Amino acid sequence: MLIVMRVDATQEDIDRVCRKIEELGFRPHAMPGANRTAIGITGNPGAIESGQFEDMPGIAEVIPVTQPYKLVSRELKPDNTEIHVGNVVIGGPEVVVMAGPCAVESEEQTLRIAEHVRSAGAHLFRGGAFKPRTSPYSFQGLGLEGLKILAKAREASGLPIVTEAIDAESIGMVEEYADIIQLGARNMQNFALLRSAGRARKPVLLKRGMSATLDEFFLAAEYIMSEGNYDVILCERGIRTFADHTRNTLDLSIVPAVKRISHLPIIVDPSHGTGKRHKVAPMSRASVAVGADGLIIEVHDQPEKALSDGPQALLPESFAELMEELRRLAPVVKRSIRPSPDH
Amino acid sequence: MLIVMRVDATQEDIDRVCRKIEELGFRPHAMPGANRTAIGITGNPGAIESGQFEDMPGIAEVIPVTQPYKLVSRELKPDNTEIHVGNVVIGGPEVVVMAGPCAVESEEQTLRIAEHVRSAGAHLFRGGAFKPRTSPYSFQGLGLEGLKILAKAREASGLPIVTEAIDAESIGMVEEYADIIQLGARNMQNFALLRSAGRARKPVLLKRGMSATLDEFFLAAEYIMSEGNYDVILCERGIRTFADHTRNTLDLSIVPAVKRISHLPIIVDPSHGTGKRHKVAPMSRASVAVGADGLIIEVHDQPEKALSDGPQALLPESFAELMEELRRLAPVVKRSIRPSPDH
Amino acid sequence: MLIVMRVDATQEDIDRVCRKIEELGFRPHAMPGANRTAIGITGNPGAIESGQFEDMPGIAEVIPVTQPYKLVSRELKPDNTEIHVGNVVIGGPEVVVMAGPCAVESEEQTLRIAEHVRSAGAHLFRGGAFKPRTSPYSFQGLGLEGLKILAKAREASGLPIVTEAIDAESIGMVEEYADIIQLGARNMQNFALLRSAGRARKPVLLKRGMSATLDEFFLAAEYIMSEGNYDVILCERGIRTFADHTRNTLDLSIVPAVKRISHLPIIVDPSHGTGKRHKVAPMSRASVAVGADGLIIEVHDQPEKALSDGPQALLPESFAELMEELRRLAPVVKRSIRPSPDH
Amino acid sequence: MLIVMRVDATQEDIDRVCRKIEELGFRPHAMPGANRTAIGITGNPGAIESGQFEDMPGIAEVIPVTQPYKLVSRELKPDNTEIHVGNVVIGGPEVVVMAGPCAVESEEQTLRIAEHVRSAGAHLFRGGAFKPRTSPYSFQGLGLEGLKILAKAREASGLPIVTEAIDAESIGMVEEYADIIQLGARNMQNFALLRSAGRARKPVLLKRGMSATLDEFFLAAEYIMSEGNYDVILCERGIRTFADHTRNTLDLSIVPAVKRISHLPIIVDPSHGTGKRHKVAPMSRASVAVGADGLIIEVHDQPEKALSDGPQALLPESFAELMEELRRLAPVVKRSIRPSPDH
Repeated sequence: MLIVMRVDATQEDIDRVCRKIEELGFRPHAMPGANRTAIGITGNPGAIESGQFEDMPGIAEVIPVTQPYKLVSRELKPDNTEIHVGNVVIGGPEVVVMAGPCAVESEEQTLRIAEHVRSAGAHLFRGGAFKPRTSPYSFQGLGLEGLKILAKAREASGLPIVTEAIDAESIGMVEEYADIIQLGARNMQNFALLRSAGRARKPVLLKRGMSATLDEFFLAAEYIMSEGNYDVILCERGIRTFADHTRNTLDLSIVPAVKRISHLPIIVDPSHGTGKRHKVAPMSRASVAVGADGLIIEVHDQPEKALSDGPQALLPESFAELMEELRRLAPVVKRSIRPSPDH
Repeated sequence: MLIVMRVDATQEDIDRVCRKIEELGFRPHAMPGANRTAIGITGNPGAIESGQFEDMPGIAEVIPVTQPYKLVSRELKPDNTEIHVGNVVIGGPEVVVMAGPCAVESEEQTLRIAEHVRSAGAHLFRGGAFKPRTSPYSFQGLGLEGLKILAKAREASGLPIVTEAIDAESIGMVEEYADIIQLGARNMQNFALLRSAGRARKPVLLKRGMSATLDEFFLAAEYIMSEGNYDVILCERGIRTFADHTRNTLDLSIVPAVKRISHLPIIVDPSHGTGKRHKVAPMSRASVAVGADGLIIEVHDQPEKALSDGPQALLPESFAELMEELRRLAPVVKRSIRPSPDH
Repeated sequence: MLIVMRVDATQEDIDRVCRKIEELGFRPHAMPGANRTAIGITGNPGAIESGQFEDMPGIAEVIPVTQPYKLVSRELKPDNTEIHVGNVVIGGPEVVVMAGPCAVESEEQTLRIAEHVRSAGAHLFRGGAFKPRTSPYSFQGLGLEGLKILAKAREASGLPIVTEAIDAESIGMVEEYADIIQLGARNMQNFALLRSAGRARKPVLLKRGMSATLDEFFLAAEYIMSEGNYDVILCERGIRTFADHTRNTLDLSIVPAVKRISHLPIIVDPSHGTGKRHKVAPMSRASVAVGADGLIIEVHDQPEKALSDGPQALLPESFAELMEELRRLAPVVKRSIRPSPDH
Repeated sequence: MLIVMRVDATQEDIDRVCRKIEELGFRPHAMPGANRTAIGITGNPGAIESGQFEDMPGIAEVIPVTQPYKLVSRELKPDNTEIHVGNVVIGGPEVVVMAGPCAVESEEQTLRIAEHVRSAGAHLFRGGAFKPRTSPYSFQGLGLEGLKILAKAREASGLPIVTEAIDAESIGMVEEYADIIQLGARNMQNFALLRSAGRARKPVLLKRGMSATLDEFFLAAEYIMSEGNYDVILCERGIRTFADHTRNTLDLSIVPAVKRISHLPIIVDPSHGTGKRHKVAPMSRASVAVGADGLIIEVHDQPEKALSDGPQALLPESFAELMEELRRLAPVVKRSIRPSPDH
């Protein structure tokens, strides 16, 4: 159930409704909008008697919800969610680019690549310290050591950091060191991890599972939001199909589908989404053209030596060229990308 | 096997090699390129002894082929194929837009929509006279009557016509009336129809099957080309996956994959590829951004009354807006779209 | 719309209703059942006014139909359809096994394998004379010559013949020489071919398309039946998925799904459905256990020399062992398989 | 790398090799077989110099491994793994049936259903205390309280318990109360959970992820085994495809594929695998016929009141009938199912 407050409702009115919800044993989620506040109710096993609210001061409307999700929905919050990280806004007018190596391999490699992507105009730096690997015998990441290297890269480049948490153990460390907590595709329905991320005080980048429907994707975000963390960035990274010319099939049509139903920002990962370097630039352009709020791109200056996913990493000079193309493209869809800092 | 001629080979040299191939009981396919001609050989059950050719004058190289396809490949013909239809070139610097209703329903409806799309700057007019329908009880198209209406629309609008042939009976009629013969996704492996299209004297627009791999798509084109018709336009129109937010999953990553391997042009059908009106404009932009050579878009001025696929048709005014967006977008990928004729 | 006749309705009553339907410009399909006859109406673009029929003698009930298919449905014909081919009944108590090579390669090979499968107890002989091949350069079958060899194999073995028709040209020949006309997965939505098969006087074995939903599969059968040929055998042969341990994913759960909705028999093709010899026997057993009415299995005595699909063919001795296993298995599901003729 | 010991190797020889492996900083996995012991080595980042082992007493062969998995492979352990739980053996000659409700809802419901399935001859009792749910607002299970109820059901029925662990928190409790720890499809690549299961002292039932390839499935098992827990039971539970007549597509062909490569037992879940009651019995029969080592089936006596997945639960009487059918079927594939205890 959603409670939509009147435009002239006072903070006191809102607080009174929230207290009432808590007294009933449920959880209120007040979402301030441009003109008015809506309050979502979660924790209720079934329908709530709406009559209990209708006479309270400041309430414009009580709307029963039939969709499986609430907090992700534009019904609750019509305006786009904008997520602030350092001086970057995700979900605002600017298209945001996160870039960096698949894995943090060493301090030297990390700082070198961070400088490359900063210079090309990336807004955030990405790099994996904890790597979820299909085989137990593959390189699993540098762990805490990797996080510390990322922190140095932030200091050197000025770019906020996005890096993946893979379990109950790593999420606390990632929350401490990173600016955005990334949850990977294989963990999209790791509900304990989603709840932990919902209790973290950093924005969460949630990747779509390889076989997740749109409803499942929204409900995974809803798990995070239902714990009180409303700063969720969705990320399309390719789904699993029969097609064998690409590692995954990047489903760009999910971008307008998300925008229609949800206020959350959505970005695209063309690196994992295709698995092939020669597709990354074209699919990055397509992502901006389709209306994505950003991109997360793998860049490596020695991809042949990369400890994971080398074949999909862009070289720094290709990445810089791509940034230039995207800067020219963004205005066509009424977005922008700030110029490279070194120009 | 491919025979690559020397840059200074004469027409006589080329003819001599072709005759030699015919004498061996095979079929030569001479493909002139910017600098040199390559000659493909088909009809050979297994490997051909290359020694038979190596001493002939004008031959630069004899290359054994290991891929399952030959004529579609850039190995045979490195330069992009440009297909001329009226004053339109498909596969050249201009992004080409084909637009019109899903089905020809009446002369009045057809001429009305043709005028809409012409005025917005479409390059070709599309409309189905023969409709392949999942149910035997659905509207099957106006048939020959529909083709005659399309011919009137061409006369009125000046736009060349693209329309679908569905079987041995209709393809002769479509060849007579239309400018491009469209083969639908369900017929991508209707090999008899592919061969018939290969003997037609009009370009063929071949849609990817709903579960076709890239190799199968290329081999379907190869069926057409092996009969002597080299003017094949590939068309991505969505694949079948588990995703349920869209009717089909438009696989835009096939565009760079095709461009890498083949010289044939590839366009995108965002209407069938998504099945939902609100996704057509974003996915059209994405298609141009990813590098497609064109689009085929359904437009209807009374979609609620359309006899088929109304929910995916753009309204004329939305189509005109989209054309404007695409005109601004094309230069970013070093392409262009000519201005609307009425401006 | 369905018209269900009373148990005591006379043939005259039935004929009167059929004439009435024809007078209205539609097509009647009288389906005699164990106790009563039901009459389906096709050719009507929309709903028919049921009042026109309700007072006619012999009518028990007039049922509006909301599903997209009619003639395939148990609503029209509650009893299982039994299809008689020689002394074999498909859809009856006996599980029917069709076996033979993928392709007819020579008279000698064909007669040899026919004798193997006859001796092991197969009920019908299969073999392709017209082969739909992904590549235009692959072996395309012996054509009419192959059909004549199949006729000789029938004479020698006593087994009825099932073989594939691939286009307008081949279907007439197949109808003349074969006992069952097979339509392949790639042609499941070749509507012209379905209609031709609907006008043929031989039963049709219709394979499910690689990405066909159950509704699409039923509607393909409906195309055939709407032309008057009610002897349609459905065949599951694997769908296309991401799974790579098998060529296709055999979807056995479609067997109970078909049985629930339709009166048509359904068989399974474990050879194309898996593409791997070691899976054919286990999946054949599973097919009988799940309730399939039969199997179509590829058998070759020199699979390493087969001109197509050798890796999925069973050796004759493995096939004979499998038949023994299936004979023991069938009674568990209240079916039977007759003993091998040579025992 | 695998080290295969000689038939006459002593325990001392084996221990010496294991110590040598540990000295090199790797992890030895000694797997005793019927005739000889093989020793797998994990923890090595790359190839190991085999010369270090070749002269040691008792070694028959040193085999480099090229597949991504080692411990799951028949190369390391040719004989089937048999897993003992109470007086039940999984992976032995008997087909093992696990049955019970989707979720533990109350003590009364649980004991009642446990008595039903015991009486019908089930070998283990299943029921979820921790439920991974797509929506944060769905019933999440009774947790520890549910485990205590399961323990009572074990006491009352004599059946060992299988129940799911969903995270780091629940796995310790499940290990304490249950006889088999189940890991669900959504957690198949929750690597932290796999490692925890690998350190548990109870067998693990690992469900295939909805879009997992066979290699990924094996590598998930390898994660568990690489921690020292070799008692892994694989479970096919349906994959995600476009097919919409079933909730998931049960991929039975994975059973012979697993048997060919791995020594681990594999069972089938026809309840989640189809999501529809009328398909559970046919697909259960098919699973036994294809060679599965067991089944896990949902049974509920009031499915319309079930808190989760009611539509796929069998009624107790249908389950009892199914058990009778399976008892008749098992001998056809040279397996058996013990008679119902009450007969």
